[in-house]
Amino acid sequence: MMQHLFVTGGAGFIGSNVVDHLLDLGFQVTAYDNFSTGKKAFVSAAQKRANFRLVQGDLLDEKHLATAMQGCDFVFHLAANADVRFGTEHPKKDLEQNTIATFNVLESMRSNGIRRIAFSSTGSVYGEAVQFPTPENSAFPIQTSLYAASKLAGEGLITAYCEGFDFQCYIFRFVSILGERYTHGHVFDFYRQLLAHPDELHVLGNGKQRKSYLHIQDCLAAMMLAIDKSKEKVNLFNLGTDEYVEVIDSIACITALLKLNPRVTFAGGERGWIGDNPFIFLDCSKIRQLGWEPRLSIREGVVRTVQWLQDNHWALEHT
Amino acid sequence: MMQHLFVTGGAGFIGSNVVDHLLDLGFQVTAYDNFSTGKKAFVSAAQKRANFRLVQGDLLDEKHLATAMQGCDFVFHLAANADVRFGTEHPKKDLEQNTIATFNVLESMRSNGIRRIAFSSTGSVYGEAVQFPTPENSAFPIQTSLYAASKLAGEGLITAYCEGFDFQCYIFRFVSILGERYTHGHVFDFYRQLLAHPDELHVLGNGKQRKSYLHIQDCLAAMMLAIDKSKEKVNLFNLGTDEYVEVIDSIACITALLKLNPRVTFAGGERGWIGDNPFIFLDCSKIRQLGWEPRLSIREGVVRTVQWLQDNHWALEHT
Repeated sequence: MMQHLFVTGGAGFIGSNVVDHLLDLGFQVTAYDNFSTGKKAFVSAAQKRANFRLVQGDLLDEKHLATAMQGCDFVFHLAANADVRFGTEHPKKDLEQNTIATFNVLESMRSNGIRRIAFSSTGSVYGEAVQFPTPENSAFPIQTSLYAASKLAGEGLITAYCEGFDFQCYIFRFVSILGERYTHGHVFDFYRQLLAHPDELHVLGNGKQRKSYLHIQDCLAAMMLAIDKSKEKVNLFNLGTDEYVEVIDSIACITALLKLNPRVTFAGGERGWIGDNPFIFLDCSKIRQLGWEPRLSIREGVVRTVQWLQDNHWALEHT
Repeated sequence: MMQHLFVTGGAGFIGSNVVDHLLDLGFQVTAYDNFSTGKKAFVSAAQKRANFRLVQGDLLDEKHLATAMQGCDFVFHLAANADVRFGTEHPKKDLEQNTIATFNVLESMRSNGIRRIAFSSTGSVYGEAVQFPTPENSAFPIQTSLYAASKLAGEGLITAYCEGFDFQCYIFRFVSILGERYTHGHVFDFYRQLLAHPDELHVLGNGKQRKSYLHIQDCLAAMMLAIDKSKEKVNLFNLGTDEYVEVIDSIACITALLKLNPRVTFAGGERGWIGDNPFIFLDCSKIRQLGWEPRLSIREGVVRTVQWLQDNHWALEHT
């Protein structure tokens, strides 16, 4: 039974959406965030509710974290350095904010007697996958980015705690998530560029990178369903749509929506950056077998994301 | 071209054997060890040679490490907390000594312009494998021990550095290695027990755990061959024998050699400890295709190990 949930990264894009959803369901929620990328505005509605508590803190501060977690019975560990692209510019950030932070979350849970955790991992852990769509048990991958390596390190720690300390975990390997409060990634970058220069758009890679996106509300529904229905010790799910688009397709969608016709230039190469996976397309039949399906197509998700950005220009300015 | 090799854990079981071998080949060698489990006696012969340098230091001391590594062109990263069994008693040890230590090694290499690394990983990263013998590209595993999780985290960091910083790596997933200077594991535990109480032997698990062992000299030959012949960016090899034994077979071999007939008691259960893999048996056809094969059978390896322990009782006393 969940009653009081602890959400790391609770003021971030995914975290704050999880917080609002859990509050709507009547749960007690404590959000923990260092506001490195989280935003006060994302939890301003939550803060008006009696069943919500916000703790400002860093996951590297073990004592503060353990104290904040007191009384909780389930942890959504969603805090992360999600800055995938710039991993090679500051390798220690992924180690600290993803790997060590996850270790601290697990140790705080252990010291508080909490044994259930949901974790936001990534489809990037499949590296350059050899099978498409890629199922959860595809071939043992080789990591190509510091971000994915740190997420896989987090997965390994969590499942080892399941075996060693009788934890139960829900690990979700996401495609790119977008939607309301989305503040990084392709669509964000393109929108911001077009706002500054409506007549030109510069694209990393050759534009042919194939990506899959999932809307935050569909992502939320999938996570809640998995936690409700799946009762293994280790519950591991890919989360994505059964479709993918090329980066140039996203661009066409965004420019049509904005009624723009920019000159598009490409940096070239099949990868957008070092360690970028030119094709991410996950086999999501495992979560679908529980009865979930996405309500929004990739195109509809992109449209809603751009609309949210149009209504929330302030969110473009503070990143 | 390798000229000056840096060996982390250079005073340990595997590390000191690597050091002696590299010195025999005429290379310049710097060994780095914090002597937490390494032994001065294991490098006493090396210290008489002009092409050897010993630096006492911890891998968590980044500055000391980076300074010690100056002038080297290849790193054998063999230092680790190899205390697999007691991971749940001190979870931070695997994180620090394996994951963070590996990160520090990679960063020190980067700051010194060194781009080639060999790494001792483990067959335990396959978790409870679904395929036997287990090939390098078997199904994406779930980690069951903090030790294996920390080794996999190390693999992920290393391969991400290959992609992000143009490193070249040799990752070896070992079965249990034994032989001269072996100071932990089944055979060591059994020998030490029988020395104290020749008439009784207590065994963790039910004795039916199936394990594979490889002799240190065969392990060394395989590593050197792979480094010589395999030229990919990421070179990943299982290292083991094409046979396995049950723990009770090892016991029979040891007691016959010692001419003892102890009463054997079993703790019971199919695992020796939490997170123990009851069956490790690796598919080593990839390294065999390079022309390597083990010269010693598991039985011969066990015999030579027991003989070395008989001749080196001092090594039993300091662990």
